[in-house]
Amino acid sequence: MRLYIGLVHYPVYNKNREKIASAVTNLDLHDLSRLSRTFGVNRYFVITPLTDQQRLTESLIEHWKTGFGASYNIDRKEAIEVIKITSSLDSAIEEIKETEGTEPVVIATCASKSGTVISFTRAKDLINSNMPVLLLFGTAWGLHREILGAADHVLTPVEGSNDYNHLSVRTAAAIILDRLVGRNN
Amino acid sequence: MRLYIGLVHYPVYNKNREKIASAVTNLDLHDLSRLSRTFGVNRYFVITPLTDQQRLTESLIEHWKTGFGASYNIDRKEAIEVIKITSSLDSAIEEIKETEGTEPVVIATCASKSGTVISFTRAKDLINSNMPVLLLFGTAWGLHREILGAADHVLTPVEGSNDYNHLSVRTAAAIILDRLVGRNN
Repeated sequence: MRLYIGLVHYPVYNKNREKIASAVTNLDLHDLSRLSRTFGVNRYFVITPLTDQQRLTESLIEHWKTGFGASYNIDRKEAIEVIKITSSLDSAIEEIKETEGTEPVVIATCASKSGTVISFTRAKDLINSNMPVLLLFGTAWGLHREILGAADHVLTPVEGSNDYNHLSVRTAAAIILDRLVGRNN
Repeated sequence: MRLYIGLVHYPVYNKNREKIASAVTNLDLHDLSRLSRTFGVNRYFVITPLTDQQRLTESLIEHWKTGFGASYNIDRKEAIEVIKITSSLDSAIEEIKETEGTEPVVIATCASKSGTVISFTRAKDLINSNMPVLLLFGTAWGLHREILGAADHVLTPVEGSNDYNHLSVRTAAAIILDRLVGRNN
């Protein structure tokens, strides 16, 4: 499996559907790196163009990799090593290309069904086809249409048992990764 | 469906496998109430015997139900209303009994496979059998054996693609609820 994930902090929407850069949160780093480690994701890109946010993220990672955190909690250290900070979607794609020798298929995730979407089955097939795949998640109020437009595919939204679809990015990512690459037990 | 969830803050383990009461976190309240709303959970019990934690939780809920938060974010208000604070597992069971006329089947979740566990298929059958079911999640380093012992069943752990099993309670709950009551799409 050549699966990568990207947590996009820019460009995303705010509550008023304006284009913004969101803040990196400590909790997303931990929850998504643990998910990555659990589901065999090769690398988790934290995508933000803001240099202060990049520095903050770097220092959080360092704390768990080599600082006090490393000896305090080995499971966190193991997980957090999957994280790579990068300034844009393009630079994440570029890095995957360097590692894999080929550009990844980019699949964006979205809470609302807008435009053409692919099913979980189709996304699974892409992941199992041995092509590198980059799965994108949006922070704040979701991925900006620029990102949705730049992706090769948009994954159909996670649906529960009713019309409510306001999951946090952490829990949505958990469900999506489990559906795509989890073992059924 | 007569599904209930409980997030247990006591008794749980800390890192050194001592019995502790963990702190309620704002983020768990939001993530798990949104999950509850998405997957048709009737009520999400925040289980803590600590009165200061109960008061803190109450004020967080009030903020989103009737305070500034209610008008700021209607989706959060809608979700947070599913929460009920209660002092113990027994009082949660008692409350379900009052509502449903019968005690719930209690299913505990656990990250490690210890003792007899039931499969996701079996847990699904229980939920679909129209009996009330209370699904328990542990904070900190997981549910204390007293809780595991008091439950009718322990659910088999979520497994990813390898041996790493240190998911946050938020992401584990997301995966478990999706597997048990999510629509496959």
